[in-house]
Amino acid sequence: MSTPAYTELFQRHQRLHRLGHLQSIAQWDQSANMPPKGNEARSLALAEMGGLLHQLATEPQLKSLLEQAAAENLEADQRANLREMGRAWRASNALPQSLVEAKSLANSRCEHAWRAQRQANDWAGYVENLREVVRLTREEATLLADGTGLSRYDALLDLYEPGMRSAEVDRVFGDLRSWLPALIRQVREKQAQETVIRPVGPFTQAAQKALGLDAMRLMGFDFEAGRLDESSHPFCGGVPEDVRMTTRYREDDFLPSLMGTIHETGHGRYEQNLPREWLGQPLGQARSMGLHESQSLSFEMQLGSHPAFARLLSPLVSRHLGEQPAFEPGNLNRLLTRVNPGFIRVDADEVTYPAHVILRYEIERPLVEGEIEVEDIPALWDAKMMELLGLDTRGNYKDGCMQDVHWGCGLIGYFPCYTLGAMYAAQWFATMRRAMPDLDARIAAGDLAPVFDWLRENIWLQGSRYETPELVRRASGETLNPAHFKAHLQSRYLG
Amino acid sequence: MSTPAYTELFQRHQRLHRLGHLQSIAQWDQSANMPPKGNEARSLALAEMGGLLHQLATEPQLKSLLEQAAAENLEADQRANLREMGRAWRASNALPQSLVEAKSLANSRCEHAWRAQRQANDWAGYVENLREVVRLTREEATLLADGTGLSRYDALLDLYEPGMRSAEVDRVFGDLRSWLPALIRQVREKQAQETVIRPVGPFTQAAQKALGLDAMRLMGFDFEAGRLDESSHPFCGGVPEDVRMTTRYREDDFLPSLMGTIHETGHGRYEQNLPREWLGQPLGQARSMGLHESQSLSFEMQLGSHPAFARLLSPLVSRHLGEQPAFEPGNLNRLLTRVNPGFIRVDADEVTYPAHVILRYEIERPLVEGEIEVEDIPALWDAKMMELLGLDTRGNYKDGCMQDVHWGCGLIGYFPCYTLGAMYAAQWFATMRRAMPDLDARIAAGDLAPVFDWLRENIWLQGSRYETPELVRRASGETLNPAHFKAHLQSRYLG
Repeated sequence: MSTPAYTELFQRHQRLHRLGHLQSIAQWDQSANMPPKGNEARSLALAEMGGLLHQLATEPQLKSLLEQAAAENLEADQRANLREMGRAWRASNALPQSLVEAKSLANSRCEHAWRAQRQANDWAGYVENLREVVRLTREEATLLADGTGLSRYDALLDLYEPGMRSAEVDRVFGDLRSWLPALIRQVREKQAQETVIRPVGPFTQAAQKALGLDAMRLMGFDFEAGRLDESSHPFCGGVPEDVRMTTRYREDDFLPSLMGTIHETGHGRYEQNLPREWLGQPLGQARSMGLHESQSLSFEMQLGSHPAFARLLSPLVSRHLGEQPAFEPGNLNRLLTRVNPGFIRVDADEVTYPAHVILRYEIERPLVEGEIEVEDIPALWDAKMMELLGLDTRGNYKDGCMQDVHWGCGLIGYFPCYTLGAMYAAQWFATMRRAMPDLDARIAAGDLAPVFDWLRENIWLQGSRYETPELVRRASGETLNPAHFKAHLQSRYLG
Repeated sequence: MSTPAYTELFQRHQRLHRLGHLQSIAQWDQSANMPPKGNEARSLALAEMGGLLHQLATEPQLKSLLEQAAAENLEADQRANLREMGRAWRASNALPQSLVEAKSLANSRCEHAWRAQRQANDWAGYVENLREVVRLTREEATLLADGTGLSRYDALLDLYEPGMRSAEVDRVFGDLRSWLPALIRQVREKQAQETVIRPVGPFTQAAQKALGLDAMRLMGFDFEAGRLDESSHPFCGGVPEDVRMTTRYREDDFLPSLMGTIHETGHGRYEQNLPREWLGQPLGQARSMGLHESQSLSFEMQLGSHPAFARLLSPLVSRHLGEQPAFEPGNLNRLLTRVNPGFIRVDADEVTYPAHVILRYEIERPLVEGEIEVEDIPALWDAKMMELLGLDTRGNYKDGCMQDVHWGCGLIGYFPCYTLGAMYAAQWFATMRRAMPDLDARIAAGDLAPVFDWLRENIWLQGSRYETPELVRRASGETLNPAHFKAHLQSRYLG
């Protein structure tokens, strides 16, 4: 069957993928390796590449190629690939190249300065760069909204979680807000009875790194197709063929780095196991950021905080950090499930984490819609931290509104994905337990293969073949159902 | 003064520089970080970028822009920049894009496979890839020669050492060949009387790395604009704003890594000190590969093997590797000036090194000219190693013709630059001593600033402002004069 237009589009996407490869590696390097004086040149280089990729994604021929390909006789997967090509085309063509380049430059500059400004608690310095990032992000949101009829915030959210709308987020988060504070109180009362032994540091960076690498092996990471390095904000980057994970170390506590590494391993395995035959094409990409977070949280929370999992982790911890009473499996699991409202989102436990996300969602949405300005962020942050978690963050920008890299690099509309991911992850494990009633016994016996096999088959290998509700329905028999998350928290923390 | 054509060319070169930045970092990463399964995708990505850069460098408008700019009213530096733009344009436009892409792909594949093949002494496997690299390099040489009237080999040599011809290399190397074997014999007889204490290993990689970093500090490397990592073949890559040096470690001997690091630091400082206001333009680039090697050899040989320099190095060695009789300055200098014919070029002493280069030159020239084939290399290698250094390399491909990365990644016509560089370096130090009769006393007192200041002023900050003979004349009062190298070796080794 001759499909000239589709074939031409296919080749153009391969080209975008190859050039994007260099962009991804240079971005990883910027966070993991680059010395400070390299930043200006790197920012200019990445802006140039961002502009070039945008230019290639908006070439005038693409519109008619997409129309012609729609009339060609395509197989189901090719048609799905074409659907995703169209979605990418609409997102790219809403924005002029000048805006794409200006955003790339402003984001790089803000993110780079943020590294030192956060250490120095320098909100006044940060806000100068952030204002420009937000201004450009609003401009982007307006253009995206014009083309889709969505609100400005929904237009951004749709970039990360296609099909998701703030009305549904409001509904789901509204429900969460109604029972979460009470649940946190109940869990804290229950846990007040427990005895927990704290690990005694310091823990050297070298020992923690060796432990993290062993944990990645336990979770099935392919070290022939990726690596672990350090950066000030952990992330999973690189390309599916060569996944670049990062973590950071604190000498006084090994758990944030260890669990962060397990989290990123979930992202990494999703990327490493996307359908090989579709790499370089939109169909070969991860479905959405919420789905991505559902993988990292399946690893970090569903598995990582599972009582049986601590039995697998305990010998690794002892091997690298020495024997301590705190590393005994029961105690390790109590440490990993300890619910304790804190300042830092990425260090938060599974129960208070959604509160951090709700807070950010309730700030970034009005920020994009122009209802508040960047100067309003600290006061709103302080008020909501007090309301949701009872914590006083006044004047503490470092551990408050400057803790995340997201807004500073223009990633606005992303935060809801974390909690949507937690909900999806709970839904996956509920599905696995229905199909495999002995799942928990198998995890306890050290057999994680059933989990990885299910995720590979139902999520990883599917790439972007189906739209999210369809993927979720095929995997679990229903679309997003937040009841699984509530049931999971109640069972694990009050059961 | 309005210079529209020059301004347009200027901007196009900025763009090439920015995209080339991503290419350089990805190439460094390929050698220093990349896991094996990433190689296929990386090779495709680099080939795509190579093709794109070639496309941008051969856009049809460039020819008339260059012609128009030649008629514009330019300042002296702008005119020099335009001259270098024209040189780059002629080199790029001699080659079709398909050849550039095929070369990039073949080189990446050959270089990647070489890493394991060298370890396994697998000549039969290597030659399969090398044949294709040589085939494409001959094709390149033929096209370059057609455009310039040069021989095929001269056309390649001109890429690395503009203006240099094999007739002059023959003359200079012919002279060298006439006195080098006798000099080696005399030095070895003299050194047979000396007592040299060998260092006692093992030396951990961590201690060697710390020592190497301290040596880089001693040599003035700017760690805010570069870093040191590891790769199987040491090199200096990255970009002038962010120099990426690599080394490799042997636990039984620390000197190869230490002196290799000092060598690469010479390359690194040249790059870090190119004229900032011209970065991104041809004028802002290092003058030639021979000039580049003259910097690395000024650091490694002229300074590194200087009797007074051992007094600066000795305390660093003891600090990181512990106290040993071998680390005493006099003994350290005897170790660093020990003349001993060996298999490995990069580990060779200053006196036998030119023999390694002559050997390679005498093989690569007929190879490119089609007078021999890749299958002929091992026998020629064996014969010349016996003739020039009295060593038997039969069957030992690993330490013989497979030791260098150059040919495998298409770098043919480069080797003469090493010995031209050694000659230039001797000429720089002869010039410095004429201007500063107390130079050796200042080095002995730990004051290296006069050397670095002279190199910065006369070489680094000049970039590509002058053609090589003019640069050399301005720096030293005469063009290339190999008598300085002979005098240097006689004075240091027989004086």
